[in-house]
Amino acid sequence: MNEALFTANNLWIMIAAVLVFVMHLGFAALEAGFVRRKNTVNILFKNVMIISIGLLTYYILGFNLMYPGGDPGGFFGFAGFGLSMPEGAAGLIEYADGGYTYWTDFIFQAMFAATCCTIVSGAVAERIKLGPFLIFCVLFVSLSYPITGMWKWGAGWLDELGFYDFAGSTLVHAVGGFGALAAIILLGARKGKFTKEGINPIPGHNLPLAAIGVFLLWFGWFGFNGGSVLSGDAGAVSLVFVTTALSAAAGIMGSFVTSYILFKSHDLSMVLNGCLGGLVGITAGADLMSPMEAIAIGFIAGIIIPFSVVMFDRLRLDDPVGATSVHLICGIWGTLAVGLFGDLAGIAQIGYQIIGIASIGAFTFTFAFIVMYVLKITMGIRVSEEDELKGLDIAEHEMSAYPDTNIGVENYAMSIQ
Amino acid sequence: MNEALFTANNLWIMIAAVLVFVMHLGFAALEAGFVRRKNTVNILFKNVMIISIGLLTYYILGFNLMYPGGDPGGFFGFAGFGLSMPEGAAGLIEYADGGYTYWTDFIFQAMFAATCCTIVSGAVAERIKLGPFLIFCVLFVSLSYPITGMWKWGAGWLDELGFYDFAGSTLVHAVGGFGALAAIILLGARKGKFTKEGINPIPGHNLPLAAIGVFLLWFGWFGFNGGSVLSGDAGAVSLVFVTTALSAAAGIMGSFVTSYILFKSHDLSMVLNGCLGGLVGITAGADLMSPMEAIAIGFIAGIIIPFSVVMFDRLRLDDPVGATSVHLICGIWGTLAVGLFGDLAGIAQIGYQIIGIASIGAFTFTFAFIVMYVLKITMGIRVSEEDELKGLDIAEHEMSAYPDTNIGVENYAMSIQ
Amino acid sequence: MNEALFTANNLWIMIAAVLVFVMHLGFAALEAGFVRRKNTVNILFKNVMIISIGLLTYYILGFNLMYPGGDPGGFFGFAGFGLSMPEGAAGLIEYADGGYTYWTDFIFQAMFAATCCTIVSGAVAERIKLGPFLIFCVLFVSLSYPITGMWKWGAGWLDELGFYDFAGSTLVHAVGGFGALAAIILLGARKGKFTKEGINPIPGHNLPLAAIGVFLLWFGWFGFNGGSVLSGDAGAVSLVFVTTALSAAAGIMGSFVTSYILFKSHDLSMVLNGCLGGLVGITAGADLMSPMEAIAIGFIAGIIIPFSVVMFDRLRLDDPVGATSVHLICGIWGTLAVGLFGDLAGIAQIGYQIIGIASIGAFTFTFAFIVMYVLKITMGIRVSEEDELKGLDIAEHEMSAYPDTNIGVENYAMSIQ
Repeated sequence: MNEALFTANNLWIMIAAVLVFVMHLGFAALEAGFVRRKNTVNILFKNVMIISIGLLTYYILGFNLMYPGGDPGGFFGFAGFGLSMPEGAAGLIEYADGGYTYWTDFIFQAMFAATCCTIVSGAVAERIKLGPFLIFCVLFVSLSYPITGMWKWGAGWLDELGFYDFAGSTLVHAVGGFGALAAIILLGARKGKFTKEGINPIPGHNLPLAAIGVFLLWFGWFGFNGGSVLSGDAGAVSLVFVTTALSAAAGIMGSFVTSYILFKSHDLSMVLNGCLGGLVGITAGADLMSPMEAIAIGFIAGIIIPFSVVMFDRLRLDDPVGATSVHLICGIWGTLAVGLFGDLAGIAQIGYQIIGIASIGAFTFTFAFIVMYVLKITMGIRVSEEDELKGLDIAEHEMSAYPDTNIGVENYAMSIQ
Repeated sequence: MNEALFTANNLWIMIAAVLVFVMHLGFAALEAGFVRRKNTVNILFKNVMIISIGLLTYYILGFNLMYPGGDPGGFFGFAGFGLSMPEGAAGLIEYADGGYTYWTDFIFQAMFAATCCTIVSGAVAERIKLGPFLIFCVLFVSLSYPITGMWKWGAGWLDELGFYDFAGSTLVHAVGGFGALAAIILLGARKGKFTKEGINPIPGHNLPLAAIGVFLLWFGWFGFNGGSVLSGDAGAVSLVFVTTALSAAAGIMGSFVTSYILFKSHDLSMVLNGCLGGLVGITAGADLMSPMEAIAIGFIAGIIIPFSVVMFDRLRLDDPVGATSVHLICGIWGTLAVGLFGDLAGIAQIGYQIIGIASIGAFTFTFAFIVMYVLKITMGIRVSEEDELKGLDIAEHEMSAYPDTNIGVENYAMSIQ
Repeated sequence: MNEALFTANNLWIMIAAVLVFVMHLGFAALEAGFVRRKNTVNILFKNVMIISIGLLTYYILGFNLMYPGGDPGGFFGFAGFGLSMPEGAAGLIEYADGGYTYWTDFIFQAMFAATCCTIVSGAVAERIKLGPFLIFCVLFVSLSYPITGMWKWGAGWLDELGFYDFAGSTLVHAVGGFGALAAIILLGARKGKFTKEGINPIPGHNLPLAAIGVFLLWFGWFGFNGGSVLSGDAGAVSLVFVTTALSAAAGIMGSFVTSYILFKSHDLSMVLNGCLGGLVGITAGADLMSPMEAIAIGFIAGIIIPFSVVMFDRLRLDDPVGATSVHLICGIWGTLAVGLFGDLAGIAQIGYQIIGIASIGAFTFTFAFIVMYVLKITMGIRVSEEDELKGLDIAEHEMSAYPDTNIGVENYAMSIQ
């Protein structure tokens, strides 16, 4: 491959990595906006720690667990701790058929890795203890995520089977969602969410922050999906841009229409989550769909969101930011959609997709459940009732997100508890 | 053209599309910051819907209205619903002389399209009904914007005449501004803005949000203007970066100096709008100007802003975010500046520019006025007095942007009404 | 060089310039979040003015002071006011060996220049007068920064000596830090920060804003360091991405561990500043380090942060945002680290690094001290005690960042003064 094409291809994957990095800010803003002000510092702190843990453990362990090399078709492999660069400039250029360098490969994949914990952090917000959560993250991102990731992207058994997941509707989003599900089952709902009288919505404290988060996630998704082409190929990347954007737009529309029909409401958090649902939904097949199919997938994801939110509420599973609806349910939907729409559609493909979701789901849920359960019976995973009432910002961090307006707010907070 | 150059060119237009996407976040943040807290959810909701409507209608209709192909020099054309990709890989590569793919062309133009409604949404904030506004957006973005856009960028009659508008001072910004003007004339001012005693400034509720919005708009503008080169040509794009940045910087300085001289004030909203004025001003000729000319154009745009804000207030036209000053007045200024400065300057060019502004302005204003008028006499376009007092967040969305601090604020809100 | 490679290289430097631009938003958000709400408009206003001043003066003066051409090894040079483009398309292409155009060179360097004042603006927040601060910025960014910058990057005497500073741990960050140090010595601490009873922490008013700022700074740093390769070279840029990201991640971890050991606390502002410390620390040698060395440099920077914050407090030097700890102390650390780790490590290099830090530090501190001192004895640099109590937003701008919640806040503000 000539140097100019190599430079251009590599450039795109590096830029895509930077865009995926922005998704961590997107998640931080979204989650901060959707929790109460008394838990804002805590959620920001967790999201700052997650990107640190994600990058460091992926360097130490994760990358070589996810891409072990060796024979294809396996369940597990490990190429050793740390990174070992292909020898010399020639090795560097030849790496990955000249599409990008070893370092580019690492940084792009590393930015993906931390995402799965960020998804969990939203679902367990406002009641989990900081220490156990960070331990959970270390294990989840350094072991669980790369092992199931290897099954498909590391040329493992699901890849050989025919399972398809272009940029990670299952491998990233549903994995985060399964982890979140295990965690919230063990953790229980926030105080006051589910009472004998019914379900009490606990609105987030800062909707502009949540909206900023969603726009930044969409922004980053152009790198998440577009970078997953793994080259700057003009036709492939630009098609992925179109399907990604149209699916997000259709997700907004789907949630808008559905919320209006179901609840006669124009709920901002629904259209925001509809947008994310559309993005998660298109992720598995963003390179396979026509624009019209992308719109269909996104629109259906948008319809799913309000139903899913109601379903989790009815199941008394408390998820303050809707992460399970967005990432788990729409992740499953998007993975199945590869069997229903686009170039691979067919009954056999539906089978492969179901096997992929089920096997990755079973592994991830079990892993997360066991880790959380052990943490629960040893350290405890939930803050005390008093700390939950006070808020985690004061209880865990002895600080407040907006200290100089707190006098009024604390009085108010007391009055509603 | 060789594959590497094609890849690099296409890459830049795709990245530029992503930067233009960020402008929607910029507008959302700016407008949310400049309205009162009781109308914040509403403005965010509208901006989320606009990007959805913009992308979907541009896919269905707008792209083929704006670029109909066929004979040049026309007033109207339509190449059919949906997108029809050039056949095969060869067609894809040859499309647009190898500069970028069909999909890249679509996504870059689609990101532009929704912008014109975002401009309107700021001007009509805090008093328009949600339903009629969304209907207006659908019609404005899918019909009015692409028809006048075709006159120049779709090789229509203005293009043949000699009218020049590089990246859309008129085609995008003034179009949004003319739509906004028609809307605010029909809608009337917010309660309490203009009274017998005089003009009451109604300050926005969150200036950091507004400042974030302006910085993000500037960020996105590098894609808006830089991408309008329609290739990654090193000399052309980098010159556009320089003129765009210097004009924005000079716009800030122009508004800073003028506000200080006029009002002895250091008003943050003036320098923020001065920055945007400089950006809108350079947009029509960003590829034609020297750095010094860019500074002159931006500085004059910065001077215009405070005068224009005062003028609209005197005319009792209420525009909460200053969108008409920034996008309409500075859009006209920037379009005229192409006849005064730079490579095309000359008396004939001034004539072409005036014809372009006048014809596009007349069409757009008329279109927007008629649509809004029909909506006014059928559905009504303005919320009730009671709803305006309560705020649109509660009235239209039954939610609040910052629910847990509302107790104090509502009391306060009552006290100032 | 072939056109495609030139296009790709140039593209990367332009995109890097845009990323560095975002750092100005990052600084604005970070500083706004870390001050009290009554000084928020003021800090935003200053940051908007700084980018304007930085770009305009760099165009008029700075670029030609920093890159004067002529004989290498000098202390001072000047190539004349304004910009003079290499003649014709051929000159443009050949400029800088075909890596990028003249305009790209200018815009990338211009985005860097304004950064040094942004660092100062955080340290002097909440008590400096607007007018003198803006005069200081004009002089600092148009004279001091480019003169010392020329010593290394303009092929001056430090470059000839062997001093190494890849992307500006000293040339940008410590320069900003030395300027900040001079300013806060002359300015004195905020009222109430240091009393007979001890040190009173004055918490920032909006931690989500500060967290957004840090993430955006990290985002921009990929352009700051990655663009400093001055080409799109795949191997070099992608290595810089990896070292930059890992050092930031390790900085977070270093501050997390150290704050917990020292204070038993999980202080969000410490991990945020730890992240920035890691970024500043790797900047001088981002192209020389292995991933493991980058982690070591970042981790040590993260450890330094809490100690440095305590040290400045003990010295009764008041820096509301921790800019001196992050940019001065970690800037010095990162510059020294080039002599301790990586390809250039060695005793001679340590000597060069010390000479570089000392000479640039002495020049910059003296320059800043003299300018601030003259401003102090002529115009005065500090607002009145009454204005400081009221807040600079009302005192200097007659406006408020969050006007509609002010009634409660002002009462509260009164109650704590």
